[in-house]
Amino acid sequence: QNRGRLLIDCPDQPGIVAAVSEFLYKQGANIIESSQYSTNPEGGRFFIRFVFECPNLKEKANEIEAEFQPIAKRFSMDFKFTYVFEVKKMAIFVSKELHCLLELLWEWQSGDLMTDIALVVSNHEDARQIVEPLGIPYYHVPANKDIRAEAEAKQMKLLEEFDIDVIVLARYMQILTPNFVAAHPNRIINIHHSFLPAFVGAKPYERAYDRGVKLIGATSHYVTNDLDEGPIIEQDIERVNHRNDVEDLKKIGRSIERSVLARAVKWHLEDRILVHRNKTIVF
Amino acid sequence: QNRGRLLIDCPDQPGIVAAVSEFLYKQGANIIESSQYSTNPEGGRFFIRFVFECPNLKEKANEIEAEFQPIAKRFSMDFKFTYVFEVKKMAIFVSKELHCLLELLWEWQSGDLMTDIALVVSNHEDARQIVEPLGIPYYHVPANKDIRAEAEAKQMKLLEEFDIDVIVLARYMQILTPNFVAAHPNRIINIHHSFLPAFVGAKPYERAYDRGVKLIGATSHYVTNDLDEGPIIEQDIERVNHRNDVEDLKKIGRSIERSVLARAVKWHLEDRILVHRNKTIVF
Amino acid sequence: QNRGRLLIDCPDQPGIVAAVSEFLYKQGANIIESSQYSTNPEGGRFFIRFVFECPNLKEKANEIEAEFQPIAKRFSMDFKFTYVFEVKKMAIFVSKELHCLLELLWEWQSGDLMTDIALVVSNHEDARQIVEPLGIPYYHVPANKDIRAEAEAKQMKLLEEFDIDVIVLARYMQILTPNFVAAHPNRIINIHHSFLPAFVGAKPYERAYDRGVKLIGATSHYVTNDLDEGPIIEQDIERVNHRNDVEDLKKIGRSIERSVLARAVKWHLEDRILVHRNKTIVF
Amino acid sequence: QNRGRLLIDCPDQPGIVAAVSEFLYKQGANIIESSQYSTNPEGGRFFIRFVFECPNLKEKANEIEAEFQPIAKRFSMDFKFTYVFEVKKMAIFVSKELHCLLELLWEWQSGDLMTDIALVVSNHEDARQIVEPLGIPYYHVPANKDIRAEAEAKQMKLLEEFDIDVIVLARYMQILTPNFVAAHPNRIINIHHSFLPAFVGAKPYERAYDRGVKLIGATSHYVTNDLDEGPIIEQDIERVNHRNDVEDLKKIGRSIERSVLARAVKWHLEDRILVHRNKTIVF
Repeated sequence: QNRGRLLIDCPDQPGIVAAVSEFLYKQGANIIESSQYSTNPEGGRFFIRFVFECPNLKEKANEIEAEFQPIAKRFSMDFKFTYVFEVKKMAIFVSKELHCLLELLWEWQSGDLMTDIALVVSNHEDARQIVEPLGIPYYHVPANKDIRAEAEAKQMKLLEEFDIDVIVLARYMQILTPNFVAAHPNRIINIHHSFLPAFVGAKPYERAYDRGVKLIGATSHYVTNDLDEGPIIEQDIERVNHRNDVEDLKKIGRSIERSVLARAVKWHLEDRILVHRNKTIVF
Repeated sequence: QNRGRLLIDCPDQPGIVAAVSEFLYKQGANIIESSQYSTNPEGGRFFIRFVFECPNLKEKANEIEAEFQPIAKRFSMDFKFTYVFEVKKMAIFVSKELHCLLELLWEWQSGDLMTDIALVVSNHEDARQIVEPLGIPYYHVPANKDIRAEAEAKQMKLLEEFDIDVIVLARYMQILTPNFVAAHPNRIINIHHSFLPAFVGAKPYERAYDRGVKLIGATSHYVTNDLDEGPIIEQDIERVNHRNDVEDLKKIGRSIERSVLARAVKWHLEDRILVHRNKTIVF
Repeated sequence: QNRGRLLIDCPDQPGIVAAVSEFLYKQGANIIESSQYSTNPEGGRFFIRFVFECPNLKEKANEIEAEFQPIAKRFSMDFKFTYVFEVKKMAIFVSKELHCLLELLWEWQSGDLMTDIALVVSNHEDARQIVEPLGIPYYHVPANKDIRAEAEAKQMKLLEEFDIDVIVLARYMQILTPNFVAAHPNRIINIHHSFLPAFVGAKPYERAYDRGVKLIGATSHYVTNDLDEGPIIEQDIERVNHRNDVEDLKKIGRSIERSVLARAVKWHLEDRILVHRNKTIVF
Repeated sequence: QNRGRLLIDCPDQPGIVAAVSEFLYKQGANIIESSQYSTNPEGGRFFIRFVFECPNLKEKANEIEAEFQPIAKRFSMDFKFTYVFEVKKMAIFVSKELHCLLELLWEWQSGDLMTDIALVVSNHEDARQIVEPLGIPYYHVPANKDIRAEAEAKQMKLLEEFDIDVIVLARYMQILTPNFVAAHPNRIINIHHSFLPAFVGAKPYERAYDRGVKLIGATSHYVTNDLDEGPIIEQDIERVNHRNDVEDLKKIGRSIERSVLARAVKWHLEDRILVHRNKTIVF
């Protein structure tokens, strides 16, 4: 595939689009999609995402990146080139509830998730028989409050070994340490089973039931060291009513969690998400 | 109109539906709608709402209520008969933002809100020129933290004078005292401009913007003395994205607030709402 | 389980609810849910669904049904008692697209679909390796325009053999003959991949793309002999835009089809659906 | 205001974004928003919309447009510059149902609709007392099948006299002639009270009721000479059920019509809509 993406984040000023599109044109690339956003045209922060096609991109990638340096410097850009031919390697972490894992596997099998699911890590054995028949390695790493350090050491080793780009917590019910989180900035995607910031923390469906809300939701976000406070990627809700007990809320919620997480993961894989402070820009 | 409604709330046990429907049948009434709910068929609380039609209902209403007493006693019922011919009298409280008031007036003019809007009370003059041409009395009652007691005394007097059944806070930006609230249990309907319990309190749109949520919402609830903690009647949401600034959120939110409040008010007027502890049953 | 359901369809007149609830009370049953609807309180058609609990229901069911006859006769009722202990037997028909089948299997494995999936019938082999490991018999019955009679004879024999109550067409891409349809009135549930009545017939996503619609949908309905014209059970939609090509519409559509069909099937299994002329009443 | 927009529609080829953004940069303009779409990167059609800010835009507009000619020629562009300081002049056509008119007036009064509502034209008198107090001229032009030519002649004269840019049919229940339509290509916006292409033509709510659909909708589109077949701008739906009669559908529908039409009009005023064949690209 000759398709690439360029993500840029820099101080806003006139001439950025001109300079970059001129650059891509001279490299022989055709821009097929571009989205931009500015927090404020005067003195704000500027974000842009280009999708381009370029003949022989694989061979030319290094050269393109090298030649882009002067422009990046001139505009003080943070930037990233990514290539469709470099498929991201994903690790999925899961505990006993398997619906989010199943949704990801199903989308992946249907060809809707452009990723290499390199391994599944779980603190339980429940998912093994689903994962292994698909040819995906499954690692049972027991984890709980008392053996957290030990468990994370094993996990870190696996992530390195498999050269993982993105970690998806598909209802993984263990807390990660600041150390682990800091090692993967904006690369750990979690699904929280409530409409954040409502019901931060444990047992959101029980608390939604107690409060008598008329809509329940789910939130996918990047993991930071503030519990359930990371940048929100996607949210959705479903209507409930007084007849629904906690079990109903969980059932209805499972379906929201599945689709919200799947959308967030897909956008991440397509490099559609830029993080600015504690918020996401989703192009 | 010969249409009436009967709302019942009592301990669950076999025979309730039989006894009440037999009673209504003997009174010559035809049940045209019934909805029931039980928190738990064994030892729970039972709720039912009947809509019935009965010839000469106006003349027979007193007799029917009197004859219902033995059944009510037998099953330890809280109950309420209401009649379509007794239109509820409504007071609308508003401040400077008029969109919710306008929506209610518009629905009322279209014949979609079966109520008598007896008066509009405001701590500002802004709405006078909209309200008075419709023949609705408008009372400017200045209100703020320092003159709360005095303002509420005036308001209470107006509510009594106009024999008000229900108070709608259509973006009324003053806090009501426990005294005022206690005088109108489950009869004050508020619209809060967030998806509760997210963003309880002031400036919800500003805080939604800061948190970077992908959906914003509004919540209509009965007012209790716990700020924004009363029984939720209705909620709804709309999708937003990173391009929307606080002003956009407010604009989008106005449209949600309008429809959420209008639905809640309509349901209240149709006696569809029963309150159980801090939750609503909406039939 | 001691839970039963009673569905009634009769001319509206006063006294029905009283008579039936009195009857259930005398049988020792506690009504735990009831929903009613009347096309017109004066001279219309009346529909009601009761859910009740009754000790020793299994032993008493025959007697209850026998004793109900006089009431049924008095009010000219069409009626049906069903029992939670009598699980409905389901046949799923599928072709090459497996997402709807997978959704049903997944809900069934999660305990959300109270049914006995007795067999899967397909005109292809694609689903065999998914179905058989779950212990569900899989029958490959080749089918096309030329061998329709022969194929349906085989299918009918299987349905009889397995004593099937409900047939779900989970993207089964063959037309059924009037003979087959007539043998299973209101017992064949189909999922059509458009928001009916838009795009009746073949290739709905292609036609939705050509028309440039901004929402695509799916519709679940009972099958009648008018193609895509049977009583609609459930519909839902998802937003699309100019960037979505036909393949995107199909992907987005798959997710709508899955949830719409699953809801319709669930409601059917819970006896929530009554058919009146060509429309459904979903309680 | 120094804000302008540039819309381009041309054959896709490399270098367009570079050439245009370079051009804008040299004019001293800062690109603050850009959206592009290509039907096919190889040999397809390319669409782009720029929003830019440029000091002294009012004075420089003519010069900019002139200097853009060579680029336009080089890439065979259809293009259009528009300026926020040139507010579009709108005519609203309405009949007896006023909810869509009211919504537009309400959004306009709130400052959410950047337009000059130059006049309201109606074949009835109903809206006069709403429109004239706002200082908007109201013209009663009787219209029906028999006097169509005469009526349209009067309307055309008014449109010319007021120098109208866009015509909104806010539930205007008269058919326009091919002559009238041809004179305003992609400048007449209609609201149809169904989810097109379902229920093309008259009485859509009655037909939706008869079909027993579970969702009803509304569609805003540009008017062409094929009835209800013009390019769709926006659609939305709301859930209904068996309890809703035709009157209910109309009430629910009114609320959908209001918001769908308001969104379509807003997008048109912001030059977000490009028409390609019979479809819209909404940036």
